[in-house]
Amino acid sequence: MKKQIILSLVVFAAVLVGAAVLFGFSNDEVKYPDNYRNWTHVKTLILEKGHPLYDAFGGIHHIYANQKALDGYKNGHKFKDGSVIVFDLLETVVADNAVAEGNRKVVGVMEKNSKKYKDTGGWGFEGFKGDTRERVVKNMDGECFSCHLSQKDKDFVFSDYRK
Amino acid sequence: MKKQIILSLVVFAAVLVGAAVLFGFSNDEVKYPDNYRNWTHVKTLILEKGHPLYDAFGGIHHIYANQKALDGYKNGHKFKDGSVIVFDLLETVVADNAVAEGNRKVVGVMEKNSKKYKDTGGWGFEGFKGDTRERVVKNMDGECFSCHLSQKDKDFVFSDYRK
Repeated sequence: MKKQIILSLVVFAAVLVGAAVLFGFSNDEVKYPDNYRNWTHVKTLILEKGHPLYDAFGGIHHIYANQKALDGYKNGHKFKDGSVIVFDLLETVVADNAVAEGNRKVVGVMEKNSKKYKDTGGWGFEGFKGDTRERVVKNMDGECFSCHLSQKDKDFVFSDYRK
Repeated sequence: MKKQIILSLVVFAAVLVGAAVLFGFSNDEVKYPDNYRNWTHVKTLILEKGHPLYDAFGGIHHIYANQKALDGYKNGHKFKDGSVIVFDLLETVVADNAVAEGNRKVVGVMEKNSKKYKDTGGWGFEGFKGDTRERVVKNMDGECFSCHLSQKDKDFVFSDYRK
């Protein structure tokens, strides 16, 4: 009898896992953008002390796009599923009338999946602290999308591809 | 007789062209680096007023590398023939506590060909004005190599790949 109960539980668990795989019940975590340093560099911007976003994003940031995102930038800011955009934020090192790149503060990521992230404009948002895989975004909507919402006409993407 | 002379001249010209192709008698012009905006972004640096190189290179510059040059950066700064490095210099636009990218000033290029450019460390140097194909370097040695010579231990390349 005990064996039967255990067997039933095992079968039940297997069915649950199977259903999850079959129907796509996965978590909504945004993947770390492996290899993004080889993607296309979209643009760069430096935010200095006194800028309204300095506390969150002060420093020098580079935007990188994978091929699908690059196509999106060049196709009137219409981004297909699979587009990934990276916001690579580094400290600035100011010395001798030069501004150089310092340590990495955060790797911000936008990943397009119109079904998975339908509540945030089709974009999943995440940040990875420094050079780690430590996730920093607790609430995509409140911490990210609420600001990107202002860019609705540009598919919620602030940056433009600089030629 | 006139026909024979013309025919002889045509044959002579054809032989010259053939010899040039066969023995590689080409000019030593550095090619414009088509598609470099899709190459890997190596690093960025901003030179401000007061920097010793401001007059020549003031603004924000990005370094881009083709695959061979990227391999060179990652292989102890040993660059194989075919390596191409781009120095993309843009004006800076400073406003509201932010430093943005402005117009392109020059596209600087280093192209490795140890035979063709043996007098300048194996590197050919060129600059293309703004968004044009107008060449600005008159004398690779005096205008470029004389300064890069200080980087002999790094195969004459100043920049390092920023992770």
